[in-house]
Amino acid sequence: MRTDKASLKQVSARIHSYIHRTPVLNSRLINEIAGAEIYFKCENFQRMGAFKMRGATNAILNLTQHQKAKGVVTHSSGNFAQALSLAAESLGVPAYIVMPATAPEVKKAAVRTYGGKITECPPTLKDREDTARKIEEETGATFIHPSNDIEVIMGQGTAAMELLEDYSNLDHILCPVGGGGLIAGTSLAVKYFGNNCSCIGGEPMEADDAWRSLRTGRIETNKSVNTIADGLKTQLGDKNFPIIQENVEEIIRVTEDEIKNALKLIWERMKIVVEPSSAVPLAALLREKERFKNKKIGIIISGGNVDLNNLPF
Amino acid sequence: MRTDKASLKQVSARIHSYIHRTPVLNSRLINEIAGAEIYFKCENFQRMGAFKMRGATNAILNLTQHQKAKGVVTHSSGNFAQALSLAAESLGVPAYIVMPATAPEVKKAAVRTYGGKITECPPTLKDREDTARKIEEETGATFIHPSNDIEVIMGQGTAAMELLEDYSNLDHILCPVGGGGLIAGTSLAVKYFGNNCSCIGGEPMEADDAWRSLRTGRIETNKSVNTIADGLKTQLGDKNFPIIQENVEEIIRVTEDEIKNALKLIWERMKIVVEPSSAVPLAALLREKERFKNKKIGIIISGGNVDLNNLPF
Repeated sequence: MRTDKASLKQVSARIHSYIHRTPVLNSRLINEIAGAEIYFKCENFQRMGAFKMRGATNAILNLTQHQKAKGVVTHSSGNFAQALSLAAESLGVPAYIVMPATAPEVKKAAVRTYGGKITECPPTLKDREDTARKIEEETGATFIHPSNDIEVIMGQGTAAMELLEDYSNLDHILCPVGGGGLIAGTSLAVKYFGNNCSCIGGEPMEADDAWRSLRTGRIETNKSVNTIADGLKTQLGDKNFPIIQENVEEIIRVTEDEIKNALKLIWERMKIVVEPSSAVPLAALLREKERFKNKKIGIIISGGNVDLNNLPF
Repeated sequence: MRTDKASLKQVSARIHSYIHRTPVLNSRLINEIAGAEIYFKCENFQRMGAFKMRGATNAILNLTQHQKAKGVVTHSSGNFAQALSLAAESLGVPAYIVMPATAPEVKKAAVRTYGGKITECPPTLKDREDTARKIEEETGATFIHPSNDIEVIMGQGTAAMELLEDYSNLDHILCPVGGGGLIAGTSLAVKYFGNNCSCIGGEPMEADDAWRSLRTGRIETNKSVNTIADGLKTQLGDKNFPIIQENVEEIIRVTEDEIKNALKLIWERMKIVVEPSSAVPLAALLREKERFKNKKIGIIISGGNVDLNNLPF
């Protein structure tokens, strides 16, 4: 019931005043190159620079007053750590963030800027989970998973919902696939608010766990994750996978060169700063140009948090 | 008469359907850092990626049918070459662009993409002028100067005019100073449409000809132009200098480090791609923070054409 159409509308109304309604941009030149009509939903302009702000905000708003007073905890070294910190700060809720000690200092600094309390741990999944569990026990904080949480999934779905409110006749909405929160939410929005619209994922070949999971019918893992799309290295979870199985038409895999080319195209032609993960759906579209010819396509630009001292150009 | 208020309104109406009305963005974090309320007029989202599209379009629209048939000619290796090419193409007018043979291939390619006919010449100002004059004689094309032309100046002024339409209560509008076309036009718009608003320029210390010109009362030249703000290396002309003398409150000079810091701030916090010249006004504001404290300030982001393979980060 919590993933039905009415619930998604409620989520959108609930987070509305805590997030930006991000602009939709397009580029005549990119349309010419693609042979399609593309509408980019620019979540790089979202608060803290990524769509994750939506899900984090919704997850916290869903808590009881008592839970809010105790705070929230997550483990993430990426955008979700910042998103949960900022969402919690906006709502007056303590946020405990478990980060590997090896995470870049710039990411820790960003979390601190937004008021998140960092606990460092060794860089394994088990250590992160154990550390988060310990904080839950000690503080009574509620654990919120970055992507495998229904409230997070619903929050992420509001980006595609807004895009369909603005452009109701899209044939496809493409988004990147990482931990599965964004694509699960997007696929629900497409189902409820699309008009003969399908949801398609873009995934790096170097981290194609979701592509393989859809084939085998069970959650696959990545042995290595050698991709510049650093937001897409995580894997699906038991809450988002069934939603993806049911509602996502297909996942298209792309090479690193295809990601880099699409990234450069977005920076050069649209004049916006986006992170490599954001370029993966455009890379997927350009890889299968014939299929998308003359279609109207929405693309979720996931975020714009990049290290300017370490660009892939 | 051609620079009065009614004329500027006419220019805005005339170019309206050939240009984008660019968005105005702001950043809570940059406002906090500056201690002021800043509204960025984002001409990096303008057609061909810079405000120059406005002046080029206006200059061509001002020609007679006979002149249009013969075409236009300019010498420029920067954004104006692309702007005149695209504006001419949009209006079905031939464009002859004189470029130094030493100009980067990527800039020549951009001009060709927009339909400009390139004539190469040796890299001195005299050679550029001689070559342009020869083309005028041979083709009957009309010469249009990138910045020292009243119709170009009036076209550039429409960016600040739009900004003041959106935000009528700005205390200052800051813009970069290169050849003087943008700041002359901006200062006219501020005079006609501002409400106790003043126009202030930002200029690199390494190319401070305009700052010196305002002091000596005559057009000064730059001996060297060692700045990353490559759009600001040119000098004032006899058409724009009197307008600047009369209507610009002051020019603030900034160091290369200040430009780089402001550039990084815009990229990181606003998630937009802007060229180094665009960061100069923000650098000027941050250099004189106390003076601008709690003020409402408009900043013209001049353009977003950068070589991603050669970034200053």
